[in-house]
Amino acid sequence: MEKVCVLGTGSWGSALGLTLAKKGYEVSMWTLNEEQAKKINSTKENIDYLPGVLFPNNMIVTTSLEEAVSNSIIVVLAVPSQAIRSVCNQIKPFIKDEQIMVDVAKGLEKGTGLRLSEVVEEELPNNPYVTLSGPSHAEEVARDIPTTVVVASTNLEIARRVQDIFMGPKFRVYTNPDIVGVELGGALKNIIAFGAGICDGLGLGDNSKAALMTRGIREISRLGVAMGADASTFSGLSGIGDLIVTCTSMHSRNRRAGILIGQGKSLEETLEEVKMVVEGITATEVAYEISKKLNVDMPITSAIYSILHSNLNPNEVVIDLMMRNKTHEMEEIVDEKLGF
Amino acid sequence: MEKVCVLGTGSWGSALGLTLAKKGYEVSMWTLNEEQAKKINSTKENIDYLPGVLFPNNMIVTTSLEEAVSNSIIVVLAVPSQAIRSVCNQIKPFIKDEQIMVDVAKGLEKGTGLRLSEVVEEELPNNPYVTLSGPSHAEEVARDIPTTVVVASTNLEIARRVQDIFMGPKFRVYTNPDIVGVELGGALKNIIAFGAGICDGLGLGDNSKAALMTRGIREISRLGVAMGADASTFSGLSGIGDLIVTCTSMHSRNRRAGILIGQGKSLEETLEEVKMVVEGITATEVAYEISKKLNVDMPITSAIYSILHSNLNPNEVVIDLMMRNKTHEMEEIVDEKLGF
Repeated sequence: MEKVCVLGTGSWGSALGLTLAKKGYEVSMWTLNEEQAKKINSTKENIDYLPGVLFPNNMIVTTSLEEAVSNSIIVVLAVPSQAIRSVCNQIKPFIKDEQIMVDVAKGLEKGTGLRLSEVVEEELPNNPYVTLSGPSHAEEVARDIPTTVVVASTNLEIARRVQDIFMGPKFRVYTNPDIVGVELGGALKNIIAFGAGICDGLGLGDNSKAALMTRGIREISRLGVAMGADASTFSGLSGIGDLIVTCTSMHSRNRRAGILIGQGKSLEETLEEVKMVVEGITATEVAYEISKKLNVDMPITSAIYSILHSNLNPNEVVIDLMMRNKTHEMEEIVDEKLGF
Repeated sequence: MEKVCVLGTGSWGSALGLTLAKKGYEVSMWTLNEEQAKKINSTKENIDYLPGVLFPNNMIVTTSLEEAVSNSIIVVLAVPSQAIRSVCNQIKPFIKDEQIMVDVAKGLEKGTGLRLSEVVEEELPNNPYVTLSGPSHAEEVARDIPTTVVVASTNLEIARRVQDIFMGPKFRVYTNPDIVGVELGGALKNIIAFGAGICDGLGLGDNSKAALMTRGIREISRLGVAMGADASTFSGLSGIGDLIVTCTSMHSRNRRAGILIGQGKSLEETLEEVKMVVEGITATEVAYEISKKLNVDMPITSAIYSILHSNLNPNEVVIDLMMRNKTHEMEEIVDEKLGF
């Protein structure tokens, strides 16, 4: 059977590795962490990130990038988004042009504001590339709960190949040519999930959170269109679908981090407590800068930015945001139609 | 202070009555139920539908429709959607042309398939009419948790008057001229909430439910456009906003009813257990018939219809629905763009 590799042994990388292993692929997982690699290989369980799930024998963890990527038909990039460039740079010596890069991280590069496909292209310009996104908590995918995702690529033939590789009876894969929209939906929803967490931490209810999410997808879409995305992608699985799952589930670390901020914890205390990478915080900073540059109105992102950076009281900021001036709903909607 | 009335003493009617009473209006609430009227007037609490909330002295319950509606500047219709026609018919003798009808029920009339604005217009053709909708659990509105709603009317001046009457620091009211879209969003989301409950009852997870909701708003929008709505309304508070709040909260009786069906209970057992009116079940039947007539593809509505009426196994129906044939996401999206 063909070989595939997954770089990163977090919960999402592990769940996708498992999905591929169940289909019979030889799965090589890579992590930097020697101890973790040994533990997983001997116990056949990733106790820290995906407890209770048994890894089959065709799924092996290595700390050698060369060993992981060599002969793999696809290279799944499942490291935090700020590590994508460095990992791509490190595999450059071993990679062949026909190997397909499959990004499953969701974020924007700090500093450059680049989408991850642009980062990968800068490092590995000759490799075909797809991004895989959608409403997909790792814990549920690992337990074979029906899940739908989108594979986006500018090259439909490549998207179809990756679709075939991942597709299973409980893991349905759609293709979408709008890679910009799919990437931005995945990266920017973390901002809104973080905001939804702040609402929860403040003790606000479902009504407030639904209003925030409705406005949230609209401002994501507005920025997305300004960056070249197709607006309709944001009404799909990788847009509103992923936003819903991330904002409403306790699985989401972005939401959990927001809850702590809403409860009055500082950014430092929050990061200390959540331990894992909180993509929404970086995404807020990067999106805030891009929105200023492109002159796109992003009231929620701006409000969260001000909570993180100006020590403003989250309660006042959120109430102010919810109760802001516009009173004719179509004013908000029309903005979007005009692409503002 | 001016007088307003609310017909119906369920949770939503009571919460809206309370909102108006807090603004200083003389609020007359109407119920058929003598015993309930007496209990609320003496205890100042609607223990069955809005426990723990104190009704102020300017909020009085009567069983006389004439007493309730006479001199009220607005008449809030907060009875189940299938009772709207009968209530409008009964108040006909007392109503004056300048009194504004404010519908807050969400549904379609069984048999005729009419929107509630059409039902009211047939009964009270001379009265101005608005519908009020959006993500708004009564329990949260009663506790002053920030909430945003939409008031829709073909007459913007009337919409603005009702907006002024309801608007408060924690209850934000937007106007929207697309009454068809606002009404259909409110009525049809109950179908998807019922379906989301079935998913939950089957033990499916957040990934499956998010996929259902994403597809759900799309098929609602498809039917809405075919019935004359503006597609963009479905991306607003009364569309995706209300859908989110109804599908994710335990407050929703539509979702709770779906959970029981998903757990294997029969329709009769479910209705017996939920006790309150489940608008989503009627909405499924009415929408199913309209979609056949207008030739609009509504896979989720059809699936739920078949669970209710053909004794099909909910698990098989849902899995079949999730895993259906189309594999290119844009095929689904394009349908919507073309208005199918």
